Amino acid sequence: MPNQFDPPSGTRDFLARETEIREHAFGQIRSVFARYGFEPLATPAFERLDVLLGKYGDDGDKLIFKILRRGEHEASGEADLALRYDLTVPLARVAAAYGSQLPTPYKRYAIGPVWRADRPGRGRFREFTQCDLDTLGTSSPLADAEVLCAQHDAVSALGVGSFRILLNSRHVLAGLLEAFGVPAELGPGVLISLDKLDKLAPGEVTAELTERGMPDGKAADLVGAMTAGDAVEKIRDVLKTSDEGSAGLAEVDDLLSMVSGQIPEGRIAFTPRLVRGLSYYTGPIWELVAEGVPGSIGSGGRYDHLIEALGGPDVPATGGSLGVERLLMMLPEPDSGHTRLDVAVTVMDERYAARSFGFATAARAAGLRASVYLGSSGKLGRQLKWASDQGARWALIYGGTEEEAGTVTVRDLASGEQTAVPVADLGSYLASQAPS
Amino acid sequence: MPNQFDPPSGTRDFLARETEIREHAFGQIRSVFARYGFEPLATPAFERLDVLLGKYGDDGDKLIFKILRRGEHEASGEADLALRYDLTVPLARVAAAYGSQLPTPYKRYAIGPVWRADRPGRGRFREFTQCDLDTLGTSSPLADAEVLCAQHDAVSALGVGSFRILLNSRHVLAGLLEAFGVPAELGPGVLISLDKLDKLAPGEVTAELTERGMPDGKAADLVGAMTAGDAVEKIRDVLKTSDEGSAGLAEVDDLLSMVSGQIPEGRIAFTPRLVRGLSYYTGPIWELVAEGVPGSIGSGGRYDHLIEALGGPDVPATGGSLGVERLLMMLPEPDSGHTRLDVAVTVMDERYAARSFGFATAARAAGLRASVYLGSSGKLGRQLKWASDQGARWALIYGGTEEEAGTVTVRDLASGEQTAVPVADLGSYLASQAPS
Repeated sequence: MPNQFDPPSGTRDFLARETEIREHAFGQIRSVFARYGFEPLATPAFERLDVLLGKYGDDGDKLIFKILRRGEHEASGEADLALRYDLTVPLARVAAAYGSQLPTPYKRYAIGPVWRADRPGRGRFREFTQCDLDTLGTSSPLADAEVLCAQHDAVSALGVGSFRILLNSRHVLAGLLEAFGVPAELGPGVLISLDKLDKLAPGEVTAELTERGMPDGKAADLVGAMTAGDAVEKIRDVLKTSDEGSAGLAEVDDLLSMVSGQIPEGRIAFTPRLVRGLSYYTGPIWELVAEGVPGSIGSGGRYDHLIEALGGPDVPATGGSLGVERLLMMLPEPDSGHTRLDVAVTVMDERYAARSFGFATAARAAGLRASVYLGSSGKLGRQLKWASDQGARWALIYGGTEEEAGTVTVRDLASGEQTAVPVADLGSYLASQAPS
Repeated sequence: MPNQFDPPSGTRDFLARETEIREHAFGQIRSVFARYGFEPLATPAFERLDVLLGKYGDDGDKLIFKILRRGEHEASGEADLALRYDLTVPLARVAAAYGSQLPTPYKRYAIGPVWRADRPGRGRFREFTQCDLDTLGTSSPLADAEVLCAQHDAVSALGVGSFRILLNSRHVLAGLLEAFGVPAELGPGVLISLDKLDKLAPGEVTAELTERGMPDGKAADLVGAMTAGDAVEKIRDVLKTSDEGSAGLAEVDDLLSMVSGQIPEGRIAFTPRLVRGLSYYTGPIWELVAEGVPGSIGSGGRYDHLIEALGGPDVPATGGSLGVERLLMMLPEPDSGHTRLDVAVTVMDERYAARSFGFATAARAAGLRASVYLGSSGKLGRQLKWASDQGARWALIYGGTEEEAGTVTVRDLASGEQTAVPVADLGSYLASQAPS
């Protein structure tokens, strides 16, 4: 039941545990991307409205969060800024703005929130993190292979074990259309229908194709070839009859050969029925899918004219995106509990407050997370309960007895064992006990 | 000269080097805060408008970026969401929303962007990062000491060497007003004037105080005591005549004693003339200042009723903020150049593309950053120039000679020395050469 203290609809607060899990995952992804020589880019949360409008189609435009003009213009009710909708339009702007300051090719990754005024729903957010990896300024298929391998490594690094990569090429799809005699004007529609082969029955797709204007027999042949048990063999044969199809096949096979040292065989496969609805792709296309997870956990492809269409320079480009929100939901629960502290320092009496604070300081100097008890109870039992709630490994106790002896009592919270340690030796004692 | 590809006024794009420096600094700060047992919190970029409005005074309200209502309501020109203006109001909301799910006390840090529709200027941004550290739910002075030490450690960890901490207490200021017979109704105004002692001449401040209604002699006495060579001694004496002043002095001295194990003597000092304009402080107050840097690089204090005033529960609280944007500008330039790669793999012929890609894979498996050449030049000179532009330590070369010999040539880019390494041994060779 939403209440007045909830975050705005479609957004989330991330408390300690979730923030740590997310940051850790992003750190792992960043580290993989850096190993491939990609560099980070961070752009503002908002862009000028005209930079964003008209880039995402009419439906996309409606989902852009617009920011009201400021000052005297506020009363006009007009917007001049808008929250970024993705990380690609800002990339196009950056490529135009910094030109020669950027290396060629420009290999960049970006991990950050984007905002869409979508209807919030299960697993659908108005603020969510995107994770993009792109190479601008080269037509080399090696660039496609890098993106593919880096995405593969990143998903593996997160600990997602069973996922597969579906690989295809726009040229294969064009070759297929040619081989099955689909007229050019029907092409885009036919591809949209073929894209449904993973959801609809073959017969339903055939019916759609017929409705779109393909002759009955050809439609059934096409769907039959795409869905046969030996579909890939069949399609390979068919493609040889088309120049563009042959070129697409060579493109796919080259890519498979390049990534074979990094992506285990069987995890990546030529998948002729992969269409990727987005019309801007111009070469190889791929999707990362995981068992039991609807939709994809990542995708990518070559899109040689998109950066220019988005307002950037005319450069060839390839790239991909990981569905990090989805990936984060798939991650195995970390088995060890969330701990806040290594060392919890009790404060048995106000007189010993500064002393206790000093013990925490010594523990931190030994590289441990440490804090004093900040509550109002003077009872050891209550303070030890606090210590164990923090997940601390040790509690330190200092009272009259310890003061006389010049020691501090180090209590192992797991075993309950207590050791009297001379005050001056506390730091080195804790350091010697701590797992390195 | 701004152009159409610049980021919106008052915001910045962070290219690779800057992003890396910023992320590294934030990571260091996070690690210090965690060592004190503070936990992270991340809240959405926007809040419901009513959560923010009325919390920052009229001037603050004007600086809030408002987000237009969506869908059919857009035409109304009304806003229902707004970009967060600071990290404290979201903290108050979270404290109200999650109550018992949060530990008591709740020690949290937050590092993230906030947005203000301020007039952009030198070092003043509309999107900038705040770095807050707060403890909710305890009146213990140990909590103040923790925030103070954690801020000190964080600034030290960043490598800022020469900074000082000015410490005072609201009770000291109240005691001063009492000791100098300032009527209660003049108190707030008098403090505002005293706050100017670091900018105005003593005579000017005296004149202001007189204008505010303080008797001439008293005003001159007060300013005289605050600005004397032995001001601190003088003020300590004067404060003894007031109960609240004595209590404030004890508060300051306790705090100094607690932090003495962590903050070097001479770096922190009781500073009676520190006022901190914000009226919500209720106990100790402090500022971190650095030589030659106008304003402060950090600040904090106890603010026992603010969280309730901001819409949260009625809990005592203490906390502080680091001026990270300012701190980032102060950081020494890292001396080593920015490097993108450890290993740059040349591609001498298309036939060797997959092979070359495999070499990069082997280098990455050895933990190195590696990439193949993605440009179109087949010339070794051009490719070696690229390799050295990337800051790579090695270039790998593979052509006909190497193919025949079953080796790959590893060129040390600093010395120019070349070594023929058997293809199968490349990974282990690079690993053995890499600095561990």
